[in-house]
Amino acid sequence: MTLAVRYTAARTLDTAPSQASPPGPGQVELAPAYVGICGTDLHIFHGDMDARVHTPAVLGHEMSGRVERVGPGVEDWRPGDAVTVMPLRWDDSCPACQVGHQHICQHLDFIGIDSPGAMQQRWTVPASTLVRLPDSLPLDRGALVEPTAVAVHDVGRAGVRGGEKVVVVGGGPVGVLIALVAQATGAEVRLVELSAHRRRLAQELGLTVWNPADDYVPALVRQWTEDAGADVAFEVSGAAGGVDTAVDVLGVRGRLCLVAIHPRPREINLHRFFWRELTLVGARLYDRSDFERAVTLVADGTIPADRLISKVVPLTQAPAAFEALEGGGDVMKILLDCTDRTDDAQGAAV
Amino acid sequence: MTLAVRYTAARTLDTAPSQASPPGPGQVELAPAYVGICGTDLHIFHGDMDARVHTPAVLGHEMSGRVERVGPGVEDWRPGDAVTVMPLRWDDSCPACQVGHQHICQHLDFIGIDSPGAMQQRWTVPASTLVRLPDSLPLDRGALVEPTAVAVHDVGRAGVRGGEKVVVVGGGPVGVLIALVAQATGAEVRLVELSAHRRRLAQELGLTVWNPADDYVPALVRQWTEDAGADVAFEVSGAAGGVDTAVDVLGVRGRLCLVAIHPRPREINLHRFFWRELTLVGARLYDRSDFERAVTLVADGTIPADRLISKVVPLTQAPAAFEALEGGGDVMKILLDCTDRTDDAQGAAV
Repeated sequence: MTLAVRYTAARTLDTAPSQASPPGPGQVELAPAYVGICGTDLHIFHGDMDARVHTPAVLGHEMSGRVERVGPGVEDWRPGDAVTVMPLRWDDSCPACQVGHQHICQHLDFIGIDSPGAMQQRWTVPASTLVRLPDSLPLDRGALVEPTAVAVHDVGRAGVRGGEKVVVVGGGPVGVLIALVAQATGAEVRLVELSAHRRRLAQELGLTVWNPADDYVPALVRQWTEDAGADVAFEVSGAAGGVDTAVDVLGVRGRLCLVAIHPRPREINLHRFFWRELTLVGARLYDRSDFERAVTLVADGTIPADRLISKVVPLTQAPAAFEALEGGGDVMKILLDCTDRTDDAQGAAV
Repeated sequence: MTLAVRYTAARTLDTAPSQASPPGPGQVELAPAYVGICGTDLHIFHGDMDARVHTPAVLGHEMSGRVERVGPGVEDWRPGDAVTVMPLRWDDSCPACQVGHQHICQHLDFIGIDSPGAMQQRWTVPASTLVRLPDSLPLDRGALVEPTAVAVHDVGRAGVRGGEKVVVVGGGPVGVLIALVAQATGAEVRLVELSAHRRRLAQELGLTVWNPADDYVPALVRQWTEDAGADVAFEVSGAAGGVDTAVDVLGVRGRLCLVAIHPRPREINLHRFFWRELTLVGARLYDRSDFERAVTLVADGTIPADRLISKVVPLTQAPAAFEALEGGGDVMKILLDCTDRTDDAQGAAV
């Protein structure tokens, strides 16, 4: 028997047996190994997305695992293959799909929110969503490919070029990944983060980090850029003050890439957009090329995925892990171990 | 003796003798013929820009006229040449100038705001600001080149391409000019305007116009675009509701070009920027290539400049003209006639 973690109501997760159905045509059954808990999963856990999520819901979209069984017509995959999943299904007919932006399909099925996700021991998905992981890549690190693909997409949307000066506002997992990907693109990066724990971790990864509680960040940027302002800012904090900072640090023709989700409208200094001819770019999810670059960056160690994993806990401890993340605290990324040997799991001792 | 119209304090203009000094090296003395009253001039008149404007100030930056005298070292211009002025002086050393964006120089002198403008009978400017007008172009139409250059710049910043669907929110002079330039670029355009007078005029120019008081514009756009949304929106209204409309009409990867000045921060639906991967582009002023294209568009009649001129009044009637514009009313563009034959001026009978 296999298990699934299910979101049943605000602040409530349970563990229930899941029914592994044989994969249908074009489908693949996976044995998830590790699943990361994402900020969006926490939003769902808070009950903020109950209008969208149909309960009981199996969450999880940052995963690694192996192919267990393949359905009829699936030719490129074999049991045992190491994979991650690009958790998107589009309709291929809406106006967005018709112009090649399938990842923002107007009827997108985001697997793990709109349909069952990876926080279970068997997971059936379309073979078209699979992305191959190198055999040499430890599977725990493979679970970081999905958030890395987000960062690759964001850096691409902002058009970061080598030599540019980039400010990343917010140093959670996605902010740190954006900083690392931008740095790998040849940019000079400054990360802005309030949490001392996250600042320390980012510094250990070689990033230059500023505490906005200590200094007025736009003044630091003016000094750093000799009054020119930054070329690019990423808003990854989700806070109103983060938006202001990201606008205020930019130089003429600077680009602000909006990564964090702001459910409510925010006040924006539009006068500065006019005065300096700034650009604001929305970024959502990723496409397959982003995923493939993310696999390379994680596999070659450009992204030190192991350093971003704060702890690994057995699938059955998901409810406690969600509670811990919700309380803030000194964590970056928590992975759920979906293998059924819970007594072996690293997190059992944490 | 020559006259100048001067802004002396909020809601106060006077007419005073002006001292025509011989043009210095690299300078040219002009005899302005027509000067348009711009929205920015009205802001100054309201007293909104007193922190920036040093009184007494001669306003005016939308002009046409003829060269009167040239200073030492000026070789390309002769008395009698028909010209307009690109009213920008930059320092060529700030970070913006160093990367080729002189028009948004961090120490820009906008002539007509930061230094004396064209609402006078003799005006001395650097020869480098002159833009030649064809002899065949009536000078009253030539005064529309500057706002047309704004529109050309805005359409360029938004990257409008042939076949795209464009919504222009706000049908004052600049909104109508943007609509006409976008149309000349091959786009399909819808103009959104509350004033019946301006809607009627825009319709007479062949534009399709919507009244936002009659219909919910985003619904009209969904119908028009078969649910895809518009490719580009221009916010030219300056109103909070205009910003909302411009955001709400856009399809995936749509671009919002911010043209109107919003002195105070505005609430923006950032979630939609994320969800549809929208882009917001600030646009300010113009460069020389915009001005040259504007001359062509006005001269070849693509921009029916004469149709946009509501009336022409003598320079001495500037105070009444500002009062009239401030009261709203059925006007598009008012020109001041700077020639000294006030009794001949068309506007004397209005």
